[in-house]
Amino acid sequence: MRAAIYRGPGEITVEEVPDVELDSPNDAVVRVTHTAVCGSDLWFYRGESDREDGSRVGHEPMGIVEDVGEDVTSVDVGDRVFAPFVISCGRCEFCRKGLHTSCTNGDSWGDENGGCQGEQIRVPEADGTLVRVPDRHADDEDTLESLLPLTDVMGTGHHAAKSAGVGEGDTCVVIGDGAVGLCGVLAARRLGAERIIAMGHHEDRLALAEEFGATETIAARGEGAVERAQELTYGGANHVMECVGAASSMDTAIEACRPGGTIGYVGVPYGVDDAGLELQSLFSDNITLRGGVAPVRAYADELMADVLGGTLDPSPIFTKTVDLDGVPEGYRAMDERDAIKVLVKP
Amino acid sequence: MRAAIYRGPGEITVEEVPDVELDSPNDAVVRVTHTAVCGSDLWFYRGESDREDGSRVGHEPMGIVEDVGEDVTSVDVGDRVFAPFVISCGRCEFCRKGLHTSCTNGDSWGDENGGCQGEQIRVPEADGTLVRVPDRHADDEDTLESLLPLTDVMGTGHHAAKSAGVGEGDTCVVIGDGAVGLCGVLAARRLGAERIIAMGHHEDRLALAEEFGATETIAARGEGAVERAQELTYGGANHVMECVGAASSMDTAIEACRPGGTIGYVGVPYGVDDAGLELQSLFSDNITLRGGVAPVRAYADELMADVLGGTLDPSPIFTKTVDLDGVPEGYRAMDERDAIKVLVKP
Repeated sequence: MRAAIYRGPGEITVEEVPDVELDSPNDAVVRVTHTAVCGSDLWFYRGESDREDGSRVGHEPMGIVEDVGEDVTSVDVGDRVFAPFVISCGRCEFCRKGLHTSCTNGDSWGDENGGCQGEQIRVPEADGTLVRVPDRHADDEDTLESLLPLTDVMGTGHHAAKSAGVGEGDTCVVIGDGAVGLCGVLAARRLGAERIIAMGHHEDRLALAEEFGATETIAARGEGAVERAQELTYGGANHVMECVGAASSMDTAIEACRPGGTIGYVGVPYGVDDAGLELQSLFSDNITLRGGVAPVRAYADELMADVLGGTLDPSPIFTKTVDLDGVPEGYRAMDERDAIKVLVKP
Repeated sequence: MRAAIYRGPGEITVEEVPDVELDSPNDAVVRVTHTAVCGSDLWFYRGESDREDGSRVGHEPMGIVEDVGEDVTSVDVGDRVFAPFVISCGRCEFCRKGLHTSCTNGDSWGDENGGCQGEQIRVPEADGTLVRVPDRHADDEDTLESLLPLTDVMGTGHHAAKSAGVGEGDTCVVIGDGAVGLCGVLAARRLGAERIIAMGHHEDRLALAEEFGATETIAARGEGAVERAQELTYGGANHVMECVGAASSMDTAIEACRPGGTIGYVGVPYGVDDAGLELQSLFSDNITLRGGVAPVRAYADELMADVLGGTLDPSPIFTKTVDLDGVPEGYRAMDERDAIKVLVKP
């Protein structure tokens, strides 16, 4: 089969690699029909995080089951499925409490299981990991593109909103106008927030945030952005969703948060350890920091119900579509911000 | 009147200073009968934080009302009262939600209002700040010494437990065997915790922790302490109370916390900003960081009810008592760990 391979900063190639096979009775093999390029893929692409030359990439899979191990009971050959960005068993203490990202039998996509930006993947713990799309929706292209973000960014935006404690009638600030921030706006609206203030740097993305339910947008940076957020919230919001992960955006989140409020953070921390988190500000204002890597498997069923019911559609985040050979171009487009998020149809 | 004065690292003197007076109709003047030396006082005493030469010290007041402004309604001359380490109005948004430390009319003890390690203080916002001890307990010395920790360390330990989400049947780890950590053990027991694992460096203090309700103690440091905590909790506790504030103890708290768990932190952050909080570990494990400077005024009434009812007694933390002239010796004893906490009777 063919798959996208990382060949060093700025270099993604599509190469011939061995087919994947069942390796355990819990495995499934899935032919990938839809996947995406993630904002977090840009870190190794830009050389800002280490990744081994030759490693396979992609972690947002949707496809058709091609083979199942003898112990797999929840899916069968021919089923349309998708899966989160981490593999989880569904049985352990952490899966049972909805923290699938801490699964004691967990695994990741990549070389051994195949990267999702490729023709096939092996899915360990298939019963715990795969989400089956009901048959009557299984071949509806629009629905599939609306479901694909549930593999990562939509579940992550939802985790930000849940972690920030967003509920009916609340006012919240969403920091970041990338795919996660935009999905965070959708999630906040879905949870009943009354005022959703979206903060970012790109007019076109903030326009999409408004389509998604943002009631106000802030296109400024740094101190100006914080001042505007404090002005709009009369001194800070009780619920702040940090959807970037940079040290500067975490500082913005703290400054935009009302004393006693909660920051739901889901952006993979980047540079925060070096800079040192402003713990003193959190401390003085009793601001709660909650969140982390999103257990999107825990949210897949409820979010899928809303997508299938027609009340949730994150697919407008896909502003560019490529085939497998177009994956390198997809990385380039995201890196240069020509696309919010790239849909890949291998 | 006479009051303790900071004269540079390691030097506390007792000097003659002007009497305090009513300055606004909301003020009261209190003659201090009981106060204490706080672990946080040691930072300037050790020269580890800045403080102006000549400033008055002490922030844990109990005494008798000597004068009240014309707008004060909740206390009168002759009443026995105590007050938290911050001044709060009781009327603003934050006081009404129990976050008195963020009071928009708040103030601190010190030069203008008098330090509490002195004969008199002026109490701004007396109705919001002062807690009146019921008359029938007002002259019972044992009761007063049991109530005094509600001005700071008992309320702070309680805030750690509440912030960590400690409830009935829970297992929690308490990091720190100072006065706050010990009060944290009392608070966790009061909230119904089933297993309370106290971690510290001093055998005598850990023995007191056991008297206070700790079911297990860990006297090790660093990696050994973390390993033991993980062993005792089969992989980390869901509720960790960080009662120190040092970078190393915050790291210990993170490592002793179970994925998906909560750290209640109340130790004034010290050195954490320099070292940089290990945000990556919090992120990977979805550990919540909640707490901050304790709004002890919010907890004063419920904790006083238990003290007066005989079910709560933090007074054993006072292992040394001095008069006003003994305040310098009190600092020395705490600095050299000859005393857990020093009671001062001016």
